[in-house]
Amino acid sequence: MAPLLLVVYWSGALLYVACFVLSLLAVREFYGVFGADSAASPAAGGGFVSRRAKPIRWIAYAGAAFLYGALFLADPLDVPIGSVLALWAFLTVALSLVCLFRTGKYTLADAMITMTGVFYVIFFLFHAALIVYFFPVGSAGNTWIRFENPLWLVIFAAFGSDIFAYFAGSLMGKHRLCPNISPKKTVEGAIGGVVGSAALCGAFGDFAVPGFVVNSIIVGVLGGLVSQAGDLAASVIKRQTGVKDYGNLIPGHGGVLDRIDSVLFTAPTVFYYIYFAQCPGISQM
Amino acid sequence: MAPLLLVVYWSGALLYVACFVLSLLAVREFYGVFGADSAASPAAGGGFVSRRAKPIRWIAYAGAAFLYGALFLADPLDVPIGSVLALWAFLTVALSLVCLFRTGKYTLADAMITMTGVFYVIFFLFHAALIVYFFPVGSAGNTWIRFENPLWLVIFAAFGSDIFAYFAGSLMGKHRLCPNISPKKTVEGAIGGVVGSAALCGAFGDFAVPGFVVNSIIVGVLGGLVSQAGDLAASVIKRQTGVKDYGNLIPGHGGVLDRIDSVLFTAPTVFYYIYFAQCPGISQM
Repeated sequence: MAPLLLVVYWSGALLYVACFVLSLLAVREFYGVFGADSAASPAAGGGFVSRRAKPIRWIAYAGAAFLYGALFLADPLDVPIGSVLALWAFLTVALSLVCLFRTGKYTLADAMITMTGVFYVIFFLFHAALIVYFFPVGSAGNTWIRFENPLWLVIFAAFGSDIFAYFAGSLMGKHRLCPNISPKKTVEGAIGGVVGSAALCGAFGDFAVPGFVVNSIIVGVLGGLVSQAGDLAASVIKRQTGVKDYGNLIPGHGGVLDRIDSVLFTAPTVFYYIYFAQCPGISQM
Repeated sequence: MAPLLLVVYWSGALLYVACFVLSLLAVREFYGVFGADSAASPAAGGGFVSRRAKPIRWIAYAGAAFLYGALFLADPLDVPIGSVLALWAFLTVALSLVCLFRTGKYTLADAMITMTGVFYVIFFLFHAALIVYFFPVGSAGNTWIRFENPLWLVIFAAFGSDIFAYFAGSLMGKHRLCPNISPKKTVEGAIGGVVGSAALCGAFGDFAVPGFVVNSIIVGVLGGLVSQAGDLAASVIKRQTGVKDYGNLIPGHGGVLDRIDSVLFTAPTVFYYIYFAQCPGISQM
């Protein structure tokens, strides 16, 4: 956590690099669970595909390099980042299908798992970089300064709602939220998470940008909701592939993807909210 | 074919509506082959998923409505279409995963097939509408006029290369291109298709926009290549799901998706080429 907070504080190019590295590690873990024996074994909880998957990893790695490279080149080349994203999505899907032309090497399931990893992990996390790209911290004429980086909203919504949900659930939890996916979660915890996220984001908005309080409370509510959805989405994927954790990078805490599963959903939500609500300091896509 | 040519000629809103309707019909056919028994049966040629799929159809239909609706609203609301596309991609992937929360209803394979249909069919075909959106025909200050609609490049590359490949293959075909996917295709036919597409597009470019000949020959070569890749991609999907045709809308000619499989790949290729090569009359995304 600590290095992550420092990276958010410094933002800029350092954050692009951090997100790029996290993308590669996380998508590697994502593909790993589909390549595990359990993914194709009904006995282990998996079994929706008929054999261990062989995701086309180079498409994800090359795609991530292309996408993050574009952040550095888009401005000097005067290319809107939205058009780069669209081209990249086209290439990802087209190449995944073209790789099936070599008969017998890959199945359609491999291609679909490849695309899903690219969009779910790389594209979703890329929104953290997009926030920095469109709301550059400390730039001239920008009301967002270093500590007021809107990326903090992503952090507060993702980890704030996690912590508040845990305490609210422990103290008041009675009604199970979704016993089949994540048995320990309660409705009371979920509500506590949303309230906590709204309070944290609201306090941040009050501190960060004059007149941004209401918007940041809305971001907090939305972010608290999708943060928990992101957590459940990661749990569903693990459950259906029959694995317990995505990895073991941080002993006892699972893999990178286990840590950032909420961020994957909150980063896009915060980005689109600030972007479409025309919050202070935005530039056009 | 004839109504299609008229729609391209009239372009504008009529083309948006035509693409929208084609998207719905084509994605319905795409999901149909995954929902067929053969998709889960190794004996029938399928078998990469362990049971008949249940794609989440409403995500595709609502997504298409959102996307095409945006074409009409983006300008009056002053929203860049690139940002709408990005938001739409996020919602598609996030909703597909959230639908898995209802335990037992959908599997991860269903969610991945849903996303694949959305990106492969709806997103790819949407580039035909994007061409019209970014290169409006007959608008003031625009060098493209009705007959010079760059959408003709998509038509020439897709159907031109098909026809030329057929004749070149029939006359000179000796070396099989990919016997396991599409047994009748030959290397000679493929080369003939690319040459034919380049010639047609070059002639069109010479006629349409002064100084556009070289660019349109390049578009013709690229379009001729990806047109055949699109054809093979559709064949691979049919082969791996164990079906012969996507549908039977036009008796003897298969379904809508069988007809437009090349267009799905040529439309994005033509769009991105004209867009990034800064060809005459483009506007920013």
